[in-house]
Amino acid sequence: MTTYRAPIQDSLFVLNDVLQIQKHNNLPGFADATPDMIEAILGEAGKIAEEVLHPLNEAGDRQGCTWHEDHSVTTPAGFKQAYDLYSESGWGSLPFPEEHGGQGLPATLNAAVQEYVAASNMAFGMYPGLTAGAAAALIEHASDEQKQAYVPKMLAGEWSGTMNLTEPHCGTDLGLMRTKAVPQDDGTYKITGQKIWISAGEHDLSENIIHLVLARIEGAPEGVDGISLFIAPKYLLDDKGNPGDRNSLSCGSLEHKMGINGNATCVMNYEDATGYLVGTQHRGLKAMFVMMNEARLGVGVQGLAQSEVAYQNAAIWARDRLQGRSISGVKFPDQKADPIVVHPDIRRILMTVRAFNEAARALIYWTTLKGDISRRSDDADQVQSADDYMELLTPVVKGVITDTGFNNTVLSQQVFGGTGYTTEQGVEQFVRDARIAMIYEGANGIQALDLVGRKLPANGGRAVQAYFKEVGKLCSSHKENDAMAPYIVPLSKALSDLQAATMWLVQNGMSNPDNAGAASTDYMHLFGLVALGHMWALMAETAQQKLASGSDQSKQFLENKLLTGKFFMDRIIPASATHLVRIQSGADTMMALDAEAF
Amino acid sequence: MTTYRAPIQDSLFVLNDVLQIQKHNNLPGFADATPDMIEAILGEAGKIAEEVLHPLNEAGDRQGCTWHEDHSVTTPAGFKQAYDLYSESGWGSLPFPEEHGGQGLPATLNAAVQEYVAASNMAFGMYPGLTAGAAAALIEHASDEQKQAYVPKMLAGEWSGTMNLTEPHCGTDLGLMRTKAVPQDDGTYKITGQKIWISAGEHDLSENIIHLVLARIEGAPEGVDGISLFIAPKYLLDDKGNPGDRNSLSCGSLEHKMGINGNATCVMNYEDATGYLVGTQHRGLKAMFVMMNEARLGVGVQGLAQSEVAYQNAAIWARDRLQGRSISGVKFPDQKADPIVVHPDIRRILMTVRAFNEAARALIYWTTLKGDISRRSDDADQVQSADDYMELLTPVVKGVITDTGFNNTVLSQQVFGGTGYTTEQGVEQFVRDARIAMIYEGANGIQALDLVGRKLPANGGRAVQAYFKEVGKLCSSHKENDAMAPYIVPLSKALSDLQAATMWLVQNGMSNPDNAGAASTDYMHLFGLVALGHMWALMAETAQQKLASGSDQSKQFLENKLLTGKFFMDRIIPASATHLVRIQSGADTMMALDAEAF
Repeated sequence: MTTYRAPIQDSLFVLNDVLQIQKHNNLPGFADATPDMIEAILGEAGKIAEEVLHPLNEAGDRQGCTWHEDHSVTTPAGFKQAYDLYSESGWGSLPFPEEHGGQGLPATLNAAVQEYVAASNMAFGMYPGLTAGAAAALIEHASDEQKQAYVPKMLAGEWSGTMNLTEPHCGTDLGLMRTKAVPQDDGTYKITGQKIWISAGEHDLSENIIHLVLARIEGAPEGVDGISLFIAPKYLLDDKGNPGDRNSLSCGSLEHKMGINGNATCVMNYEDATGYLVGTQHRGLKAMFVMMNEARLGVGVQGLAQSEVAYQNAAIWARDRLQGRSISGVKFPDQKADPIVVHPDIRRILMTVRAFNEAARALIYWTTLKGDISRRSDDADQVQSADDYMELLTPVVKGVITDTGFNNTVLSQQVFGGTGYTTEQGVEQFVRDARIAMIYEGANGIQALDLVGRKLPANGGRAVQAYFKEVGKLCSSHKENDAMAPYIVPLSKALSDLQAATMWLVQNGMSNPDNAGAASTDYMHLFGLVALGHMWALMAETAQQKLASGSDQSKQFLENKLLTGKFFMDRIIPASATHLVRIQSGADTMMALDAEAF
Repeated sequence: MTTYRAPIQDSLFVLNDVLQIQKHNNLPGFADATPDMIEAILGEAGKIAEEVLHPLNEAGDRQGCTWHEDHSVTTPAGFKQAYDLYSESGWGSLPFPEEHGGQGLPATLNAAVQEYVAASNMAFGMYPGLTAGAAAALIEHASDEQKQAYVPKMLAGEWSGTMNLTEPHCGTDLGLMRTKAVPQDDGTYKITGQKIWISAGEHDLSENIIHLVLARIEGAPEGVDGISLFIAPKYLLDDKGNPGDRNSLSCGSLEHKMGINGNATCVMNYEDATGYLVGTQHRGLKAMFVMMNEARLGVGVQGLAQSEVAYQNAAIWARDRLQGRSISGVKFPDQKADPIVVHPDIRRILMTVRAFNEAARALIYWTTLKGDISRRSDDADQVQSADDYMELLTPVVKGVITDTGFNNTVLSQQVFGGTGYTTEQGVEQFVRDARIAMIYEGANGIQALDLVGRKLPANGGRAVQAYFKEVGKLCSSHKENDAMAPYIVPLSKALSDLQAATMWLVQNGMSNPDNAGAASTDYMHLFGLVALGHMWALMAETAQQKLASGSDQSKQFLENKLLTGKFFMDRIIPASATHLVRIQSGADTMMALDAEAF
């Protein structure tokens, strides 16, 4: 049995104190997000996560989804009731514009809510999560008519959404796609093909499922520039806009997976299914990338979420489990043994995970706030800068937070000893669930390539240069501040490693692109250390200011922040040096072996 | 579907060329291990692993073991036939002394065989693996009568063995043990208590199961010095030495686990079960540690084994899967895409795993050879030195090879993208199976403490000083050798990091033991980098000598060795610097938070 408690105090600290999102109340929707309102919303979100979603997590894993002969799929017991409650409470519409039926609240606030959902029950959270991504793509690219027909129902949770990209022979390389779309006289298309790994492709939670499908219109150019995006609803809408005739698409089978068993991962078969073109012909990939970017941040949230719930359970076990004696002297002489939290190596695990989680949470909010600004500000410079940052950091959030988040579930499991290996205990599910986040929405190697090959050089390196300047400025501003030195000195060192790595890439990646590829994953993780270190410096700055000003916030909370940040600087950020050495070793040894030698 | 091919060529290279075990043919049993004999034995072992054991691996995971109302346990279909073949072929007796029914061959050779077994089917391999550990403990500590009664049958596989340590409230801290033993007038004991996580505790493979059980004799001192070791057979032996009356012990249930589902992990209930004291009263832990040390090296083998089978499958997928184009230019213009092995980031994964596996294999053989020398040599100095090394390296082999081996299964899974997350593909089982190796036989945090707290200071640091001298001597011997510089320079650097860390521990671990605890895991991994780097230097030296002498060994094989070793030196060993920084940061930040703050 596992437990979960939404880290509301920590969310509030980042939103209100570190990012001070109230400063942005000139943006649409932000004025509504007063500190009281934020606290109330997070309180409610925490409640549904703790009391409704988490209790379904283990049973959902064990029971999984069931495919029936009539191609319908049943979700685990309790999911439907939870889904209805979730939808009726408005959680599906929180950050979307009011004109489409949303509540218009900041996406930054929604990121906190989604962490709680993904931590309490990742498999469940994917159903509304996919719908949100599909709705975002429609809002950005669909016609007004299409938006009116689909988006409000999706935000209300009455209908759900999916994204259909992968085919058996084509995952990362979408240019190989074969699913075809044949234009019909009435302006619709007939879609035929097979899609795999379709999360939430078929289920019993919503009354309609709106599939967004990538396909190649007959006669389209080869490669990624010949792919178009279509809406293919499970039930075609009748003339009143209600679900009518069944479309000729169905779930052929469910994948059997390592984890996220509560989510239906479907093979979807389209046989002359009716589809409606979204946006322009052959520009489908661009439209889908809106969804992908939203989804990538969402997957980063999952990485943090699983790391957080794993940490919480490990911490409880470490405080309760009596085993051995502290090596620095007995701590609880009246008990037969000390709790294992007295052992430094257990502390090492807990602090490693905690120091990551708190910074990852801040980084996700920070990046999502850039997205809010990019979408809502009417100041062109501000939009450009925010957009640059969001684009730059998205692969870092996705790649680093899911890689490290997964490692953290493994570390947390280790605290339990043998107990952690049993399904009854439950922490092993976090490991299995977290594993997928490193793979889907672009495997992390692809995130690294996106960062190195696309995001760095974009606009002549404008984003990364601005970013280095911002982090550098923060460091300089505390040059004379002894209290901040434990945070600023290590961050400056890591920043200079990152700058050296960037320079190396500029000098060596052009002449031999394999050097860029060989460096990419280490570069992404080096970037992640700086980005997380940046968050720790901001959090330490805030905590010190609040402590100095005699804030009424818990002194203990602020002091623990400072200690946890110090741990990050002592133990985690120094890995930047190793990443730099690896990057600078180049591609030669890596590429030397013949393919047949492997 | 996964596949497995025993890495015989690599085993032969390490045994014959690097370690030159023929040089030790003055040791009992070694003269029989001629190169031809070794090749024949490894060929046969490879065959059973590839053709019999691996085909049962996936089905064994899915079917698992079944507990019946009569407290019997059925293993997965096919396991019994495979077990009989394994036993009849003599694999269970290979390294044991001939006087007990063994074949007397080197344990070093057996380590290679056991890698193949654990790679092809880890859950299966645990059944004979536990028997071997129990037999080793009996050979060391039991009376002649007990040895005669039990050991030959165990080595023949007719009977199997277990080790019973853990209780629900006591895992690492065996001093808390409650299972009690009451002396009877006939010299036997009645054992009562519950043991958990008993691997192979009950099954249908052998006609008797010989449980080695730790228990506390009534009136014994508290703590670990009051624990005795007992033989408690499932069937008591009749006067002809055959299985007779059922002993009053039984399997109460099976654990449901993350992996190794083909192995029966039992809750064992003892209710006035008849037990026979092994060795001296209250000295049971010492006897059990013989078994534990054997078992720890065996678990290290499992870590390598899962890493190897995961690598092999990832390599095949990387050569076959067509996706994307090489960033340095199209490699296969006649195909729609290039195989993913052209992508540097895929190479990074494959090379990382491969460079570890080859060195880990050498390190396991090297350490096991020390064990062979320690047990078989009659030269007291040689025995002491070999024993020192084996003791020193055992926690490194167990902790580092299982931690890294697990990470490597995760890396290998990543090569498959979404496919790797499905149970059908099968590589996810390697991840789940490998995970337990970090936990059992002493969780890896305990290995690290064993290294830092027990093995380093033993005999005034004699073992570690000798080890540093040996590695240092190798480095010095190549000082003028340019061809060896790519291996020797990085190894020297890592060795000096390890020496600095050791010095730091000496200076700071005494005054504050928490500093030692806080450093322990990083120290173990830093030690591992040096130990693996040492193996790479030896392998590179051998490969260069053979290439220079125009050996008839495949030139390609030797050149690939050199490239793979170079990758290790470029990309993996430099992490030593980060470990050193972490170690030197001390325990303060780690221990600062109140326990309640977690």
